[in-house]
Amino acid sequence: MSRLKDENLHESGRRKIEWVKPRMPVLSGLAKELAGTFRGVSVAMSIHLEAKTAYLAEVLTGLGAKVAITGSNPLSTQDDVAAALARTGAEVFAWHGISPKDQEACIAEVLAINPDLVLDDGADLTVTLARRGGASRVRAITEETTTGLQRLRALAREGKLPAPVLAVNDAQSKSLFDNRYGTGQSSWDGIMRTTNLTVCGKTVVVAGFGWCGRGLALRARGLGANVVVTEVDPIKAMEAHFDGFQVLPMEKAAVLGDIFVTATGNTNIVDTRHFGLLKEGCILCNAGHFDVEVQMRELTSYAKGFREVRPNVREYELPTGRRVYVLGEGRLVNLVCGDGHPAEIMDLSFSLQLLCLAYGLKNGAGLAKTVHPVPGEVDRRVAALKLAAAGITIDVLTKEQEAYLASWD
Amino acid sequence: MSRLKDENLHESGRRKIEWVKPRMPVLSGLAKELAGTFRGVSVAMSIHLEAKTAYLAEVLTGLGAKVAITGSNPLSTQDDVAAALARTGAEVFAWHGISPKDQEACIAEVLAINPDLVLDDGADLTVTLARRGGASRVRAITEETTTGLQRLRALAREGKLPAPVLAVNDAQSKSLFDNRYGTGQSSWDGIMRTTNLTVCGKTVVVAGFGWCGRGLALRARGLGANVVVTEVDPIKAMEAHFDGFQVLPMEKAAVLGDIFVTATGNTNIVDTRHFGLLKEGCILCNAGHFDVEVQMRELTSYAKGFREVRPNVREYELPTGRRVYVLGEGRLVNLVCGDGHPAEIMDLSFSLQLLCLAYGLKNGAGLAKTVHPVPGEVDRRVAALKLAAAGITIDVLTKEQEAYLASWD
Amino acid sequence: MSRLKDENLHESGRRKIEWVKPRMPVLSGLAKELAGTFRGVSVAMSIHLEAKTAYLAEVLTGLGAKVAITGSNPLSTQDDVAAALARTGAEVFAWHGISPKDQEACIAEVLAINPDLVLDDGADLTVTLARRGGASRVRAITEETTTGLQRLRALAREGKLPAPVLAVNDAQSKSLFDNRYGTGQSSWDGIMRTTNLTVCGKTVVVAGFGWCGRGLALRARGLGANVVVTEVDPIKAMEAHFDGFQVLPMEKAAVLGDIFVTATGNTNIVDTRHFGLLKEGCILCNAGHFDVEVQMRELTSYAKGFREVRPNVREYELPTGRRVYVLGEGRLVNLVCGDGHPAEIMDLSFSLQLLCLAYGLKNGAGLAKTVHPVPGEVDRRVAALKLAAAGITIDVLTKEQEAYLASWD
Amino acid sequence: MSRLKDENLHESGRRKIEWVKPRMPVLSGLAKELAGTFRGVSVAMSIHLEAKTAYLAEVLTGLGAKVAITGSNPLSTQDDVAAALARTGAEVFAWHGISPKDQEACIAEVLAINPDLVLDDGADLTVTLARRGGASRVRAITEETTTGLQRLRALAREGKLPAPVLAVNDAQSKSLFDNRYGTGQSSWDGIMRTTNLTVCGKTVVVAGFGWCGRGLALRARGLGANVVVTEVDPIKAMEAHFDGFQVLPMEKAAVLGDIFVTATGNTNIVDTRHFGLLKEGCILCNAGHFDVEVQMRELTSYAKGFREVRPNVREYELPTGRRVYVLGEGRLVNLVCGDGHPAEIMDLSFSLQLLCLAYGLKNGAGLAKTVHPVPGEVDRRVAALKLAAAGITIDVLTKEQEAYLASWD
Repeated sequence: MSRLKDENLHESGRRKIEWVKPRMPVLSGLAKELAGTFRGVSVAMSIHLEAKTAYLAEVLTGLGAKVAITGSNPLSTQDDVAAALARTGAEVFAWHGISPKDQEACIAEVLAINPDLVLDDGADLTVTLARRGGASRVRAITEETTTGLQRLRALAREGKLPAPVLAVNDAQSKSLFDNRYGTGQSSWDGIMRTTNLTVCGKTVVVAGFGWCGRGLALRARGLGANVVVTEVDPIKAMEAHFDGFQVLPMEKAAVLGDIFVTATGNTNIVDTRHFGLLKEGCILCNAGHFDVEVQMRELTSYAKGFREVRPNVREYELPTGRRVYVLGEGRLVNLVCGDGHPAEIMDLSFSLQLLCLAYGLKNGAGLAKTVHPVPGEVDRRVAALKLAAAGITIDVLTKEQEAYLASWD
Repeated sequence: MSRLKDENLHESGRRKIEWVKPRMPVLSGLAKELAGTFRGVSVAMSIHLEAKTAYLAEVLTGLGAKVAITGSNPLSTQDDVAAALARTGAEVFAWHGISPKDQEACIAEVLAINPDLVLDDGADLTVTLARRGGASRVRAITEETTTGLQRLRALAREGKLPAPVLAVNDAQSKSLFDNRYGTGQSSWDGIMRTTNLTVCGKTVVVAGFGWCGRGLALRARGLGANVVVTEVDPIKAMEAHFDGFQVLPMEKAAVLGDIFVTATGNTNIVDTRHFGLLKEGCILCNAGHFDVEVQMRELTSYAKGFREVRPNVREYELPTGRRVYVLGEGRLVNLVCGDGHPAEIMDLSFSLQLLCLAYGLKNGAGLAKTVHPVPGEVDRRVAALKLAAAGITIDVLTKEQEAYLASWD
Repeated sequence: MSRLKDENLHESGRRKIEWVKPRMPVLSGLAKELAGTFRGVSVAMSIHLEAKTAYLAEVLTGLGAKVAITGSNPLSTQDDVAAALARTGAEVFAWHGISPKDQEACIAEVLAINPDLVLDDGADLTVTLARRGGASRVRAITEETTTGLQRLRALAREGKLPAPVLAVNDAQSKSLFDNRYGTGQSSWDGIMRTTNLTVCGKTVVVAGFGWCGRGLALRARGLGANVVVTEVDPIKAMEAHFDGFQVLPMEKAAVLGDIFVTATGNTNIVDTRHFGLLKEGCILCNAGHFDVEVQMRELTSYAKGFREVRPNVREYELPTGRRVYVLGEGRLVNLVCGDGHPAEIMDLSFSLQLLCLAYGLKNGAGLAKTVHPVPGEVDRRVAALKLAAAGITIDVLTKEQEAYLASWD
Repeated sequence: MSRLKDENLHESGRRKIEWVKPRMPVLSGLAKELAGTFRGVSVAMSIHLEAKTAYLAEVLTGLGAKVAITGSNPLSTQDDVAAALARTGAEVFAWHGISPKDQEACIAEVLAINPDLVLDDGADLTVTLARRGGASRVRAITEETTTGLQRLRALAREGKLPAPVLAVNDAQSKSLFDNRYGTGQSSWDGIMRTTNLTVCGKTVVVAGFGWCGRGLALRARGLGANVVVTEVDPIKAMEAHFDGFQVLPMEKAAVLGDIFVTATGNTNIVDTRHFGLLKEGCILCNAGHFDVEVQMRELTSYAKGFREVRPNVREYELPTGRRVYVLGEGRLVNLVCGDGHPAEIMDLSFSLQLLCLAYGLKNGAGLAKTVHPVPGEVDRRVAALKLAAAGITIDVLTKEQEAYLASWD
């Protein structure tokens, strides 16, 4: 019932999934602990379809759920993984390079399972439900991304959320790790493998100093770059300044950068205001959800033309005569030009997703149709399980210390 | 009316205050903008008495306030600064090495001005008021520290707060900077100048990975140490782990450390459970508010004896035959062994204090007697003013970007 | 006359070469300046055959040389690049996965051009010449690697060098950059893209703290790892210690490591003494010239068996029941699992090679048949050209400063 | 027979010396091993007189030498240490703030012992001997600094060296550690304790990227600064560039810097060409041997005036109306504003000095009167002893590995 590029690719995909399993011990542990929890439950998923997400889908299926899944980005689906997943009982509607129209159709297919639970990454499933309006039997929605939560909060302000949302992205055990260390490493992995250029000695401009931006800046520095940060929030800008980064408005940074990476969740971070300022040979890429941070539509009309000079590298010839290089068509560089976040990091995020789906299944009916933070005990539990899996022991408050913290005398 | 060590020390103190003024441009700017705001207002202050706090007191006096001030730690008062401050109109009750009994008397003197506003650092003034009970005309209290807020929250739980509290410590423009970059730098400054030992090549154990602990760990690594972190919170422990630090329980860390720095706001972090495990020659110090993190009372009774081997360095001879070295009697190493946080950092914290006192003066009557967060606009304003003073320009959202962030479509 | 995997792959290879050209401006500049220098000169090359080396070969051809080239490692040859190079006039004898016997034949084909100059990477061409003995018309040899120079110095001790050697590897403009920043980045690029695992939070063991090892350790730390260094030289070990790394003998490090990277130029760094100590799931790889640093022969006989679990990842099942993972069959991880050093770094190394070949051509006849350092003026010239190409201006000594440095009074 | 500020200060000085002893275990070990080696030998020393150098002098006295010592910088002598040292048998001619004329007299007093060995730091003793000309019974000279070696090499070129020189400064176990980690830490210690200003968020200009400059830049970055490097050597400049520092000529850097630290061994690094470009409030200091790197003579005549605003901080009012601040009168900031290098680092340097003096005593007669490198085995021995003292074990080459390294086959 799945729609795939080629179901024969499954062996390569299966190897990828088997590789990540032992690196996701918390999720594997929960897969045992929660046995039967999702029996008969329909789960609609929209998420980058690669090995780690496939393993999450498999775990859900193994716990009794009926899962239908589509990709959340046209270039991040790995066809071999999709094929492998489709053999395990999930319905998969996704392929690399899917067209907008086909993507719409696939979303419809996924929602056709009449889900009890929705796992969203970028909010496409929920926005589709909201557009349709009417009642839904969805008990809870979990959202993986900063961008998705922005959209869902906008829906909430208009009273259009079809069900309560658990803000997985904002949980500490997610954003502190996945957004920072995950995006930080996997984006530079993607940039390096795609370009084979040095990072050291380069001026790297990181747009946005949220958790993703921090990770990007930290790793860029760790790889030897001279890092410039752009921000709109004065507190974050001040942090970047005291961290020793140069803080500049994009107009000034545009002149200096050798590599630009955007991570704002916003639009038009590098756009027609800046294209004419860019240096010959500079690299543009994006680690945010949509291909509007480096404004691809504007770049395409601004430039005299473009051509593919390497896999995932497009050279744009600008009216200035200069050439700039865009990675992965301005889409998530870590997923399009790489394999996404490392498995050990996603173990945190997807264990949290699983626990939030279980929480939503149990408690969703009693929650208002708005955006809710992940309960603190769920958040801390994921971290505690991960420490245990990593063999790390930490201190425990003594009675005396607990009393001390509770007293004022 | 002040009580000082020696009023003749004022010239040296004056030079110290004049040194910090031009490095605190935000506070200086507010000193103009808020002219007259505190006319006739009594402000009771308890805070480490050195150049930056003295300048804050001077600003308040200049804005019309009647200020009475005492120190918040027996070893952090600088007598020359106290003498200089006393000549500017503030009543000063503080000297270096003050006894617990004298400190109590000084607190009483400060409260004798019948304050409209209380600025606390460690909550001593407020706890004294709470113990006295009865009505007070205090409109608002601001608290500078993690430890003080713990005590105030304990008071709030028992309904004993004499007035609403503004949690200055928890504001972003305070804790992200003062606790992290301020404690980070000034503690290592204090440790290095007091010991003249290498940090590079040493194993440094940082207890607590809150904002202070992060700053301490970051700078220790920046100075070339191999850093071990201890924590009780699984999320913070996980962050330390993914930051590349070794995370261990103190029992394991105690065996490895060459230098220990505590920053937990808790008690008995290094205590009799650990003293026997320490290496010959190791250094113990504390960056938290009280001298119980490295449990000095227990160490004194555990050891066979101690002697002063350098200014601010006590050698303890342990029953194991080993010798360990405690800096600054286990009190705040950055203030006792150094000059506290750099002026540029305190410009943020004390500008925030000033704006919070002004806010409390105006709005305190309408606030519940509990602990309130600093209003977000006050918090962001301090950062924005600091950026402006530093000549840093940042991006501003375009209309298009604001619309994008507000939409879901 | 070339021997290739498939000459039809040339288009992809051509794109790769075109990508690196503008990133190698010093080499491109010398390609103009030295016009005609190599007219009628035969150059035999043995080097990892990928885009940057291909460009060097093209430059030589463009300068009039007759070039014959083979690969220096069976897994580092990129067949598409080989095909592209073969169309430009060079004779190419190389393909990916070449057998030892075929490699020997290819070396013979390359030497059949009766070279005036030999460019070696690992010393295979020179060792072959030395084995043959007899006279040769080779005027000079340049050697690119630490390992190659060890072999050539051993030959020199036995009086068997067929011609004077210029120790390109040891030049500052080579080893400080290529070995450190090149190996540092490209190895981690290779490890990350091949495994998709985190580096942050892992314990990384770097064997050898020469320039390669330093680069590996620096980048591992920059990526968030906790780094352990092993060494045999006390001065280098002490440097690693004061840089904040843990320094351990391999026997102790073997128990702790999550990822091992060897870079010693020696043999049996991780071998049967250590295999039984390794942790479940650990990763073994090598950044040195031969597949004996992680002793592959011994591992293969020690293990119960192995299987390919991902491209370039072999899982070995050990008698302990544990599984360990070897990347790129224990050969140069940056070249087998990645694309080798970034072009900007190789611009330094290959410009130096070109200048050394020119120097050897002109001066080789007058040099003893031993290993010579690269002349200092050649070394500094490469750096100066690179700074100019990067648009970096530096200070120049004033007359007064020159006089000061020359005086003692 | 000593000339001191005040012999009664000895107790404080004694405590300082006792503090460093157990932190210099290699020197302490050699003090036993070499018993009697220097019996009846006269040693003339000119070196910064503080606890570590005093301990070296004590060790020499304990080994039988007759020691006469003076300071190598007018502001680095610690009078209490001088007093303590004078009680142990050495003749001490040094006090803080000594005038040039008195310094000359003290040098004469030191040389009056008719030395067998000279330990120089900056070459003052040797230059005096060279000026005098004539025969001397000096068997060997050791020199501690980059600057001193420059002067001695100039003397050597003119054939004026009175005895063979051992270039202690250039030994690996000295310059890699003392110059890099010692200067790096102690200079920032001095700057921080003297100014109480932030390093994080500041633009720090480091002039010179030799071992001292590298240490300064590394620690500045570790403390959160944005670091700019100036250089005259293209290879070092390129290293700084690939390390992620901005590389600029001083003319450009002068406009950007908040803190300048010079470490070149040259003169006029910041001089009248730059003073007019400096920012309001910037800090100037020097980590090189003489007060000409920041050209103090020129600054004094350029400025409208200066005044002491804090201990060791002079405010210069410039014709531009701006004020700049010079630390420690432009002399070695780590020694004048701090206590010099940490004891653990000086354990390496002074153990090397001791071994070189012993080597010179034994072999000096057979050496040419020129500048000699420290013998490699002496150099490595110091590092090996230090590792042993630190409890660090490293790998030892196996027979098989030795054979591998020696072979070419």
